[in-house]
Amino acid sequence: MSNRREVRAQAQQYLDSLKGHPFPNSTKLYLQGSRDDIQVGMREIALSPSLIGGDQANPITRENEPVPVYDTAGPYTDPASTLDVRAGLKPLRRNWIIERGDSAELDGVSSHFTQQRLADGGFDHLRFEQLPKPRKAQAGKVVTQIHYARQGIITPEMEYIAIRENLGRERVRNEILLKAHPGQSFGANLPESITPEFVRAEVAAGRAIIPANINHPEAEPMIIGRNFLVKVNANIGNSSVSSSIEEEVEKLVWSCRWGADTVMDLSTGRHIHETREWIIRNSPVPIGTVPIYQALEKVNGVAEDLSWEVFRDTLIEQAEQGVDYFTIHAGVLLRYVPMTAERVTGMVSRGGSIMAKWCLAHHKESFLYEHFAEICQICAQYDVSLSLGDGMRPGAIVDANDRAQFAELQTLGELTKIAWRYDVQVIIEGPGHVPMHLIKINMEKQLEDCFEAPFYTLGPQITDVAPGYDHFTSGIGAAMIGWYGCAMLCYVTPKEHLGLPDKEDVKQGLIAYKIAAHAADVAKGHPGSQIRDNALSLARFEFRWDDQFNLSLDPDTAKAYHDATLPQESAKVAHFCSMCGPKFCSMKITQEVRDFAAANPNFAEQAHSIEVGQLDDAMQAKAEQFRQGGAELYHSISTNDKVLP
Amino acid sequence: MSNRREVRAQAQQYLDSLKGHPFPNSTKLYLQGSRDDIQVGMREIALSPSLIGGDQANPITRENEPVPVYDTAGPYTDPASTLDVRAGLKPLRRNWIIERGDSAELDGVSSHFTQQRLADGGFDHLRFEQLPKPRKAQAGKVVTQIHYARQGIITPEMEYIAIRENLGRERVRNEILLKAHPGQSFGANLPESITPEFVRAEVAAGRAIIPANINHPEAEPMIIGRNFLVKVNANIGNSSVSSSIEEEVEKLVWSCRWGADTVMDLSTGRHIHETREWIIRNSPVPIGTVPIYQALEKVNGVAEDLSWEVFRDTLIEQAEQGVDYFTIHAGVLLRYVPMTAERVTGMVSRGGSIMAKWCLAHHKESFLYEHFAEICQICAQYDVSLSLGDGMRPGAIVDANDRAQFAELQTLGELTKIAWRYDVQVIIEGPGHVPMHLIKINMEKQLEDCFEAPFYTLGPQITDVAPGYDHFTSGIGAAMIGWYGCAMLCYVTPKEHLGLPDKEDVKQGLIAYKIAAHAADVAKGHPGSQIRDNALSLARFEFRWDDQFNLSLDPDTAKAYHDATLPQESAKVAHFCSMCGPKFCSMKITQEVRDFAAANPNFAEQAHSIEVGQLDDAMQAKAEQFRQGGAELYHSISTNDKVLP
Repeated sequence: MSNRREVRAQAQQYLDSLKGHPFPNSTKLYLQGSRDDIQVGMREIALSPSLIGGDQANPITRENEPVPVYDTAGPYTDPASTLDVRAGLKPLRRNWIIERGDSAELDGVSSHFTQQRLADGGFDHLRFEQLPKPRKAQAGKVVTQIHYARQGIITPEMEYIAIRENLGRERVRNEILLKAHPGQSFGANLPESITPEFVRAEVAAGRAIIPANINHPEAEPMIIGRNFLVKVNANIGNSSVSSSIEEEVEKLVWSCRWGADTVMDLSTGRHIHETREWIIRNSPVPIGTVPIYQALEKVNGVAEDLSWEVFRDTLIEQAEQGVDYFTIHAGVLLRYVPMTAERVTGMVSRGGSIMAKWCLAHHKESFLYEHFAEICQICAQYDVSLSLGDGMRPGAIVDANDRAQFAELQTLGELTKIAWRYDVQVIIEGPGHVPMHLIKINMEKQLEDCFEAPFYTLGPQITDVAPGYDHFTSGIGAAMIGWYGCAMLCYVTPKEHLGLPDKEDVKQGLIAYKIAAHAADVAKGHPGSQIRDNALSLARFEFRWDDQFNLSLDPDTAKAYHDATLPQESAKVAHFCSMCGPKFCSMKITQEVRDFAAANPNFAEQAHSIEVGQLDDAMQAKAEQFRQGGAELYHSISTNDKVLP
Repeated sequence: MSNRREVRAQAQQYLDSLKGHPFPNSTKLYLQGSRDDIQVGMREIALSPSLIGGDQANPITRENEPVPVYDTAGPYTDPASTLDVRAGLKPLRRNWIIERGDSAELDGVSSHFTQQRLADGGFDHLRFEQLPKPRKAQAGKVVTQIHYARQGIITPEMEYIAIRENLGRERVRNEILLKAHPGQSFGANLPESITPEFVRAEVAAGRAIIPANINHPEAEPMIIGRNFLVKVNANIGNSSVSSSIEEEVEKLVWSCRWGADTVMDLSTGRHIHETREWIIRNSPVPIGTVPIYQALEKVNGVAEDLSWEVFRDTLIEQAEQGVDYFTIHAGVLLRYVPMTAERVTGMVSRGGSIMAKWCLAHHKESFLYEHFAEICQICAQYDVSLSLGDGMRPGAIVDANDRAQFAELQTLGELTKIAWRYDVQVIIEGPGHVPMHLIKINMEKQLEDCFEAPFYTLGPQITDVAPGYDHFTSGIGAAMIGWYGCAMLCYVTPKEHLGLPDKEDVKQGLIAYKIAAHAADVAKGHPGSQIRDNALSLARFEFRWDDQFNLSLDPDTAKAYHDATLPQESAKVAHFCSMCGPKFCSMKITQEVRDFAAANPNFAEQAHSIEVGQLDDAMQAKAEQFRQGGAELYHSISTNDKVLP
């Protein structure tokens, strides 16, 4: 295990390296809210001009407006920001939290474990140095976003989110970019413009959550709900087999760069506490955890020895560090456990099986279920959201949608009501492994059984035959369930079921899931979601190659693939591509068709009147006109490089 | 451009290399039909035994039966076969074709172009040496599979296909492997067992085709239809920018290895004729082409100079080489062309835009449309199937499902009826770029407008924002439309829209599409399709790592990913994996739950009676029993390696 100097040095080196690699042609844009300190970060992709006439020496061009895109990377995509891994990010929500006057800074940490840990010099070398003092609700106060929402209060977080969710689309003027198909939303309510009041109302109704622990003021506000953009979560975390603190910080930043809306730290190895501290202080996105993993570490891995006291202290430890949401498998009831015995792969949820073992060993309901109200009380004091874990999720498509899975879902619905009673924000976790035709019923049951609390699914993976490609087998299911109404998709990497993801795997998993989430937004008809598609398609039609790369979810790969076939710089401005070569360009032919149609406005009607095999004189004349005006199809690369469309 | 010696040497080297790399633990299995020469090749994956008891020194094991899987690779996965790229594959259908007595070997080739080409010594160095003499229907005869089917004749091809489509599932005994969810088939008719008569009836009705040119007797019979397994096509082909003959032969074999059910040769560069010859003679799968590409080469790329005569000669040239299906864009009507002018990306089909340009230039309907009956007559003489191209397909999601696209689809329906009148087999090509929620209507319209002729789509790609990942953006749409009823999915590689695919791209495209096709089979409820999923899931549960790799669509990658984290050979038999490490194994806990449930058959009922927080004496006793019997969760890697579940 490395020491703090190494952690600092390696992680800082990585942060510094980001400055040299911003997204190409992109700038950071801050949209101003109603107060000075509401500055919503977006990324804006500048485009090159379109050639619309003239000749090579004197081209006539038309400017293209930049395309704003949602940006999860926070300060990491802002070259103007100062990045210091030791200090962590700027706490942009700090004043909002203080202003509310319902929380207070504590003199010290409340968790016994944290107290012991801080007192133990043996961890000094790994510790994050500039530890902030934890905050907690004042006695009798509740500091959750749902609590404010229900009182009719629009928080700065809510306004920030409203601006963010609108994708800066009010800036877009080009009509072509604004074209969009009407969506099919399956009951989702997607207003043309998201207002702060809409955000408030959705949070108040429990249909959306804003994971925002008062001890994680560095995170940029974001929302998870069916009536907002579909979000993506990336899992990171070392296990006992592999990985170190600096690797996890790097994976965090890397995840945010490639679009993770939240990150779950699933570490199960040693130094969980210290790893988490580094992650939270440097994270612009909400951080989720599964506290039972650490609790189990504390009882040396003996599930039967877990207790409410150990678990409770772990919740407080993590809440005071700033964890934004807890996955808690409180729906694993004793009577559900034997329902899994007939399954091919039994229980595959780690948290779920730990609790199942505890339940069997003690022959009683788990302390998570029995103490659920107290869990809610803790969450309400820090605004930790609850993600009710699906301990009974299927681990193979053959086990999908069985009695165990759906029985637990009903219990999660009961727990949702309890959480809401305590003004705690809740989302519901879902499967897992489900063949395509059984996905929709999962979404429908969840909405019904859990009263429209947001759904958060792992995939689902639609076939088990392709280990090594489960980012894709699950990405298909994720796109579908996102369309049907799932609010957040937990990514899967290519190494799922096989090994621990490295940085490249994290990126591949994220790109697959950003595609799924975006496709879901488009299919639902989320206003503005098609702008980026249209901008890219238009760039494609006009052979603006660099714009195609830069508008892509992964500009580096798009450019590298293009360059693998046509590496010359001239090919970037060539009006053809490697697929057909310069001879067969269908895009070029289309432009000719279009020019001709524009010059002959009655053409369509006249063409309509043609009977097969008949040609009248007018048509003959038109044919001649086209022949004279039309360019031949063949152009050599050398002469065609700069020819206008 | 290389000479023949190089082609031969390089391609042969590749074929030889395959022998050293069969699929791991796989053997070739031939299922015997009703006559000696019906030998249906399958691949059978042998599995390791399950550990069911005993101890490390004396393990008690249970054998696992091998899993048969559909195999598109023909002789290339049979170590016993002799592979000689110069001689081509064994013509397994030759006698069946001769026996029918309705075709004759010609003395020479009929195409003027081919005659000239053969007479030109300048091409000798590139030529396939052992050219077979072409066959053609005797005067007045029709040699198509649909012709036989309509007469009530079950051909050996049909019987071969019936055996092949059953996936060898009658050999599977393990009940767990045979578990399957009822599918959702959207009207597809999927019998428990495919009979030769069922194949015949489907072909007779036009609901399925058997692409099987009498001049391509090397191809193994396969079927494309909604009531059969969903198929995948891979495109290969050099363009004027890149690639050579030996690369294309290598891509062909590589494509078959990774699951291509058919391969389209889309070459547009020089030496199209010679490249195709090498491909067909070495292909165990049907080969498709787009003849207009070559016809255009023959008129030096000037679309207006295309004529029926040039096109007709090209059809005959390719039919006598053995092309199994032609893509023909005969649905591009003059009056449809202006409908594309308002699109963002206009026309993106190469063939479609060539014909559009021709129509505009001549101001009449295309020769493809006007001479469609003659095209059918040619096809009927060789049994070339028609794939009616969608020249109007959208090239961006914004252009999806528009007037131009659906107008052409109706014309393709009219042409389908004409083809059927000539006993020619037909499939219909479809989009393209379509957001998720607009996919289903494409399938529904196609079934209605084209009278259930099989649908064959390119993707569809569901978003345009991810160039570099369009195998995935389109694979999602492909999985969905396959489920809805699409019969064959044309793959897309990661380089789509950016560059020409290399071997790795071909593989990535194929794996993505095999996943899509398989997931569609499972969702439709195709009998037996879930066997491989279940076998892999069971192997996963039992920690049979090698079996997981070997059952995967891509064993090499699965194994490599596992070994990246746990390279030791001992990890392959370890009862844990790198995701959780040995401490947290949920699979292991499940086994304990199962053992406990088995030992306590009334447990479920008793557990049901527990009220939260209450425990009676009997439950206390059971808890104690479990505690005594249960193993602790923590095991070190060293001691756990060989522990039985």
